[in-house]
Amino acid sequence: MTDLKNKILAAVGEDLKVIEQALAENLNPHFNLVSQVARHILFAGGKRLRPLLMVLGARLCGYSGDHTARFSTIFEYLHAATLLHDDLIDGADMRRGRQVANQLWDNSTAVLTGDFLLARGLSIAADTGLCEVIQTIARITENMSQGEIRQLEKKGDLTLSEDDYLEVIRCKTAVLFEGACRTGALVADAKPAAVQALTDYGYHLGLAFQMADDLLDYTQDIASLGKHAGADLRERKLTLPLIHALSRAPKADRQCMIAIFEKRDFSETEFASLVEMLNRHGGIAYTEARAMAHVQQAKTALSPFADSPTREILMDIADYARVRKT
Amino acid sequence: MTDLKNKILAAVGEDLKVIEQALAENLNPHFNLVSQVARHILFAGGKRLRPLLMVLGARLCGYSGDHTARFSTIFEYLHAATLLHDDLIDGADMRRGRQVANQLWDNSTAVLTGDFLLARGLSIAADTGLCEVIQTIARITENMSQGEIRQLEKKGDLTLSEDDYLEVIRCKTAVLFEGACRTGALVADAKPAAVQALTDYGYHLGLAFQMADDLLDYTQDIASLGKHAGADLRERKLTLPLIHALSRAPKADRQCMIAIFEKRDFSETEFASLVEMLNRHGGIAYTEARAMAHVQQAKTALSPFADSPTREILMDIADYARVRKT
Repeated sequence: MTDLKNKILAAVGEDLKVIEQALAENLNPHFNLVSQVARHILFAGGKRLRPLLMVLGARLCGYSGDHTARFSTIFEYLHAATLLHDDLIDGADMRRGRQVANQLWDNSTAVLTGDFLLARGLSIAADTGLCEVIQTIARITENMSQGEIRQLEKKGDLTLSEDDYLEVIRCKTAVLFEGACRTGALVADAKPAAVQALTDYGYHLGLAFQMADDLLDYTQDIASLGKHAGADLRERKLTLPLIHALSRAPKADRQCMIAIFEKRDFSETEFASLVEMLNRHGGIAYTEARAMAHVQQAKTALSPFADSPTREILMDIADYARVRKT
Repeated sequence: MTDLKNKILAAVGEDLKVIEQALAENLNPHFNLVSQVARHILFAGGKRLRPLLMVLGARLCGYSGDHTARFSTIFEYLHAATLLHDDLIDGADMRRGRQVANQLWDNSTAVLTGDFLLARGLSIAADTGLCEVIQTIARITENMSQGEIRQLEKKGDLTLSEDDYLEVIRCKTAVLFEGACRTGALVADAKPAAVQALTDYGYHLGLAFQMADDLLDYTQDIASLGKHAGADLRERKLTLPLIHALSRAPKADRQCMIAIFEKRDFSETEFASLVEMLNRHGGIAYTEARAMAHVQQAKTALSPFADSPTREILMDIADYARVRKT
């Protein structure tokens, strides 16, 4: 697992450096406060996976121009904008091991900086001069806000089905991955089949990535997660491990899981007992299997492309999405 | 004044009806909560001035197609999105005579509905298929968020200059008016000179409109304003009447005005005494004169266009911006 991560990092090290530089340059904020808050969320050890996907997607489609790094920042800005608004909505304390912006500053500043980063992303998208790119970005923002709203509405709702869950993670995660990959192909002026192939790759990768994220919330400790384990549970967000386990557990265990879910302040012991039940009733294994299936679909989507180092990195990233530990 | 308003309303009655319909149709939200909150802010007696400007701008440039109403909703959605986030940031209680959304529901819902309306606006902009329109919208969102940030940063800052004030109202109001008028011309495929003329018209109209708004905060009672008079003062927002009066008043009155400004809970008597000083030291008259100058510049900007009923309405709207009482 660490080997895979290191292999990917070695292959994309130069790209990440250029993306990092573009993120700082494009920010170019005229105001001190927003710059500070934007930097707090942007430069806190994010993986830059979304911009990287756009850069790699463009390269896979033969693009060799100079603009991918700048355009790729769109996807990190949109992502950061969502995180700022999400943290406020979720009432979370920590993000990537640091205090959240709406606590370090205040709600107003977090909302406005989120708005600014979204606007910055749009401006850069408009600079591509490609209507299809801009339509892609518009669709992303619309889906993401709908996904967040749906998630907020369904908070604490124990009747959430696997389909409801899929719709939420499609909106809040997969469309951004999909959009980044698609934009890479569009910037490279790729043929429709290639655009569609990369779109599919991004979509399935996004689903796998979010499922893995939701698994980590139950299986990882705080040190490597950079936030509290059980955060989803504390925010009363039902994710696939629990949805599946609830559908399979006998009544007594089901009630026990629900009782812990309904508590705002469950103890470590209660959390451990919930995780044990998630394991016992197949919630963890099922989610792993679903994530694996989407990894497989992502990789299959790349089959129209000839073998190349770039294609190999994208295959590796798909594998990594499932096995990552942070 | 009421005559002018009635004349305008008679001339644009049909347009307003179509815009109203498009606002409801385009909203088409898939989720109940967001629909409710969006409707609360959208259908609370707004003047629809921004969409109307786009429709009239397109007509002035000879557009006769069917799409203006739909495209014009962009500007009302962007406006409503900003209001939702603003009310949260300002800590205001009322808007257009109704309780603000972040109090009726909560901050999270207000933030997300704002995000959704912005996204909806972008999606519709993308549907125009016109890159210049989308670039205009991107620039609007960027400016508006920067204006809000600047306003937040400068809250309570007594050193705010007239230039700082102009920059804030340019960003938070004029760019949206400007963008609506410009988009009208772009949709009509107008020549560059006509696009520029309508852009200038919208810019100056927006400045005049905001100055008139800032005047109303000191000169209007709550019944006609739909919010508390003195709201800007209570939020420690320095606007032109006070900026100018502070720059002209002798030390004693200056200190007296500052003392009232520094208070969070000034009495009605204190507010009345501040307004008296704003009058005495020319703050009100100066702001009126500046608003009038921008009304004049807006009207002059329309001189390249031949006389027509549409041009006359736009001229009337410019006059109305200055004299309106709500």
